[in-house]
Amino acid sequence: MSVDMAVKILDESLGKIVLIKLKGSKVIRGNLHGFDQHMNLLLDNSVELLDEGKSNEIGTIVVRGDNVVMISPPPV
Amino acid sequence: MSVDMAVKILDESLGKIVLIKLKGSKVIRGNLHGFDQHMNLLLDNSVELLDEGKSNEIGTIVVRGDNVVMISPPPV
Amino acid sequence: MSVDMAVKILDESLGKIVLIKLKGSKVIRGNLHGFDQHMNLLLDNSVELLDEGKSNEIGTIVVRGDNVVMISPPPV
Amino acid sequence: MSVDMAVKILDESLGKIVLIKLKGSKVIRGNLHGFDQHMNLLLDNSVELLDEGKSNEIGTIVVRGDNVVMISPPPV
Amino acid sequence: MSVDMAVKILDESLGKIVLIKLKGSKVIRGNLHGFDQHMNLLLDNSVELLDEGKSNEIGTIVVRGDNVVMISPPPV
Amino acid sequence: MSVDMAVKILDESLGKIVLIKLKGSKVIRGNLHGFDQHMNLLLDNSVELLDEGKSNEIGTIVVRGDNVVMISPPPV
Amino acid sequence: MSVDMAVKILDESLGKIVLIKLKGSKVIRGNLHGFDQHMNLLLDNSVELLDEGKSNEIGTIVVRGDNVVMISPPPV
Repeated sequence: MSVDMAVKILDESLGKIVLIKLKGSKVIRGNLHGFDQHMNLLLDNSVELLDEGKSNEIGTIVVRGDNVVMISPPPV
Repeated sequence: MSVDMAVKILDESLGKIVLIKLKGSKVIRGNLHGFDQHMNLLLDNSVELLDEGKSNEIGTIVVRGDNVVMISPPPV
Repeated sequence: MSVDMAVKILDESLGKIVLIKLKGSKVIRGNLHGFDQHMNLLLDNSVELLDEGKSNEIGTIVVRGDNVVMISPPPV
Repeated sequence: MSVDMAVKILDESLGKIVLIKLKGSKVIRGNLHGFDQHMNLLLDNSVELLDEGKSNEIGTIVVRGDNVVMISPPPV
Repeated sequence: MSVDMAVKILDESLGKIVLIKLKGSKVIRGNLHGFDQHMNLLLDNSVELLDEGKSNEIGTIVVRGDNVVMISPPPV
Repeated sequence: MSVDMAVKILDESLGKIVLIKLKGSKVIRGNLHGFDQHMNLLLDNSVELLDEGKSNEIGTIVVRGDNVVMISPPPV
Repeated sequence: MSVDMAVKILDESLGKIVLIKLKGSKVIRGNLHGFDQHMNLLLDNSVELLDEGKSNEIGTIVVRGDNVVMISPPPV
């Protein structure tokens, strides 16, 4: 498995909905529009998912990669 | 998607209002006047957004990049 | 023991079920489909294991390596 | 916007009063006498600003850059 | 004392029982089967030692080096 | 202001009493006998300053630089 | 004061009793048998010092350098 594993997965997810878990239990769902080698992510139509099914629309965001715990790519 | 993703988004946001979420739940809104490759940010007319709709005017600030969790660029 | 210890173990675990413990006590079990030299992991059919035997299916995920505490490879 | 953004702002603030927010909610106000590329700061006539308008004079200090969250340069 | 201190100790401990203390007070005892220059460790027959003399068998594990606080090599 | 700011201040403080604030609110006062480019510090006749004016003599110590928040050099 | 400050002090402390304070308030006393440039330490006859004068014999240990806050070398 090569160095480019994360890049490959993120690349295949471009233009699709991903779920991002950040440090501190924050969860974001959005359309992946870009990324770079630091795992910085560009999402649009993003929603912050809160407890009890509530959510908060946050539009377009850049997430700094060092806050990312997990990324769920879209189902194939 | 290239290495320059964050740079491109920040570059397009220069002179516009951005919303910055920092580690420790601090939220800042301000006019983006500059940035560098560490995601250090220069904002002016900044406001720290507090609970219950309160806010605190903090003028011009430099934010150290390693505190940044998310940046919301201005709507297109 | 060489520099490639973690790589060798992860390589032998490809296509098999691994158990991942993350910082903050999160535990994930899934099928290891990829990894890179940062210990970024690609898992599918993943399940987050919760207290009291509960679990939460989370499908395919990329885990950012700097969150990993321990990896249990599959038994030989 | 170049790599030298933070340097330029700090350079223009030399000899002037700046407000520094550190990790852990510490706030320092002082006269900026020096800095380096790690954002290490040399302040004199510094005051630590405490709750309820109290403050604590701490004179000349070197602040280690990795503790800095935000720097407010002096108004133009 | 050379750069290779940790490597030498770990090398002499291969195939023997070591005790590992991790950040967050986790304690693991296991047979050291490998390591690398990041202090990533490969242990088998590992046991997580819990409070009040309880323990939890966790078999073979890879521990990510940046979680390690202390390693007790086997007695000579 | 050059890269050597912290070095210059520390150099001028050699043989004099400095006050060191560490992460986690620890405060140390001691005679600065040495330092290096990581801001590792060698202090002697050190005292840990505790709450309510109490203190604890700790003699000669090496402080690892990444724990340092602020250094107060001696008054000119 | 040169880059080699910490190395020099540790070198002079070889074979002698040192006191080590770690992040998270752990305190270890032991005979320094080795170290490297990451401040990884090899101690033997080590004792973990607990509250109320209690202690816990932990024999030979390798301490990972990034956990170290302070080292008290032996008195001259």
